[in-house]
Amino acid sequence: MTLKAVIHVRLRSGILDPQGRAIYQSLQALGFSGVEDVRVGKCFEIMLHADNLHAAEAQVQAMCDKLLANPVIEEYRYELGMP
Amino acid sequence: MTLKAVIHVRLRSGILDPQGRAIYQSLQALGFSGVEDVRVGKCFEIMLHADNLHAAEAQVQAMCDKLLANPVIEEYRYELGMP
Repeated sequence: MTLKAVIHVRLRSGILDPQGRAIYQSLQALGFSGVEDVRVGKCFEIMLHADNLHAAEAQVQAMCDKLLANPVIEEYRYELGMP
Repeated sequence: MTLKAVIHVRLRSGILDPQGRAIYQSLQALGFSGVEDVRVGKCFEIMLHADNLHAAEAQVQAMCDKLLANPVIEEYRYELGMP
């Protein structure tokens, strides 16, 4: 079966986010004075073939741990479903 | 009121995604042969102060159009809610 995994990776809370800070400052400069904080993360949309949902979940967790996220500073969550 | 906006920005379908391609190749090299396609996007978590939900929504759309997304090649969606 082919499944679609949507993986969200973001910095753990407390970790400095310089990209978010830069966007915050740009938004302020553009006049969005109501903005109080910006954090930036990544999303991965992965189409994958697996025998079943359980196998797909194990694959997605392994991908995150090995390549997509740095567990020291980042946390991830994912949704698995039909494409 | 303070609201949290979660904005997802991704390349429009049909637009070449070299970052996704690189991750696809890395995943293949790591042995994840079930992976068929990878697309990469960005997520922004923005805390913002607004008078009401309607005003917040207008702000978020303006931020996306002016800074966060390039409408020529990217599309965005967002969720607005309590922090």
